[in-house]
Amino acid sequence: MPYVNIRIAGSLSREQKAKIAAEITDTLERIAYKPKSYTHITFDELPDENWAIAGQLLDEE
Amino acid sequence: MPYVNIRIAGSLSREQKAKIAAEITDTLERIAYKPKSYTHITFDELPDENWAIAGQLLDEE
Amino acid sequence: MPYVNIRIAGSLSREQKAKIAAEITDTLERIAYKPKSYTHITFDELPDENWAIAGQLLDEE
Amino acid sequence: MPYVNIRIAGSLSREQKAKIAAEITDTLERIAYKPKSYTHITFDELPDENWAIAGQLLDEE
Amino acid sequence: MPYVNIRIAGSLSREQKAKIAAEITDTLERIAYKPKSYTHITFDELPDENWAIAGQLLDEE
Amino acid sequence: MPYVNIRIAGSLSREQKAKIAAEITDTLERIAYKPKSYTHITFDELPDENWAIAGQLLDEE
Repeated sequence: MPYVNIRIAGSLSREQKAKIAAEITDTLERIAYKPKSYTHITFDELPDENWAIAGQLLDEE
Repeated sequence: MPYVNIRIAGSLSREQKAKIAAEITDTLERIAYKPKSYTHITFDELPDENWAIAGQLLDEE
Repeated sequence: MPYVNIRIAGSLSREQKAKIAAEITDTLERIAYKPKSYTHITFDELPDENWAIAGQLLDEE
Repeated sequence: MPYVNIRIAGSLSREQKAKIAAEITDTLERIAYKPKSYTHITFDELPDENWAIAGQLLDEE
Repeated sequence: MPYVNIRIAGSLSREQKAKIAAEITDTLERIAYKPKSYTHITFDELPDENWAIAGQLLDEE
Repeated sequence: MPYVNIRIAGSLSREQKAKIAAEITDTLERIAYKPKSYTHITFDELPDENWAIAGQLLDEE
């Protein structure tokens, strides 16, 4: 712990995921004093038709 | 917010997801007074072998 | 299953939760053909200072 | 309920998932007195590049 | 990882949580070959009025 | 979306949560091109006895 779950519609490149994981791990070390090795981060990339905002699936927009 | 996560075994058609999202968003507006634009809904469709009830995977039933 | 998790900032009255649960269960029966007894719904009510939108905790707004 | 969500990087065989579900359901019956039929267990198998520990994606290791 | 989230209505004693955590960690080591130190387990204990089955809050039953 | 859930054992001060939310929202804007207003972040602060690592509750350590 901490355990961080990031959910997005669409996908991220491997490079984007690597950078995001590095930055969030750094944020939690500096601000919450969590050693880097404690932080787990997971990415859930959902199809646009599996995410709705305001009652509409995102692939409608 | 609200953030609503719907998890099912098996899959739903795009049409089913659209209707479910529209109805739940409406429910939260009428009953919880959440403006429609605030509500996010995600669908997680799991393979039957990734869901167990009573200690048995659903593809055994 | 289905398993539905509803997360909001702030709280709902017992009556609101009862109505929301009844309506969503009904929605999933009519549209996704899930028998009512299959549907589990959970509510997570978070303090405003535990939810951020646009980088700001909700109790700042 | 209970609802148990197991998230791993990589994948499990069907046989592994069946055994894990059976054992955890048994654990919750013996220790928490939850009838077996109440327990739902889901498995989320994530690609290695979607899980980071210590700021590094697992496919880097 | 693995990351295991156990959600129940009502509460568990500290002793029950300790035993459940020990057994599930053991299960994942024997069956999924995950070293014990990798396994994180969290418990979410919800009020009965925050869990519905079949469209009814559990405190109605 | 994105929707980010941060789970920790113990608690964070309001100031820590504000800074973490601001930084992660910034990270997702710079790296994943998500407008700040899209990002929702939630914090779940769990009691130490509700989190286990290596089969031991954290309040044992």
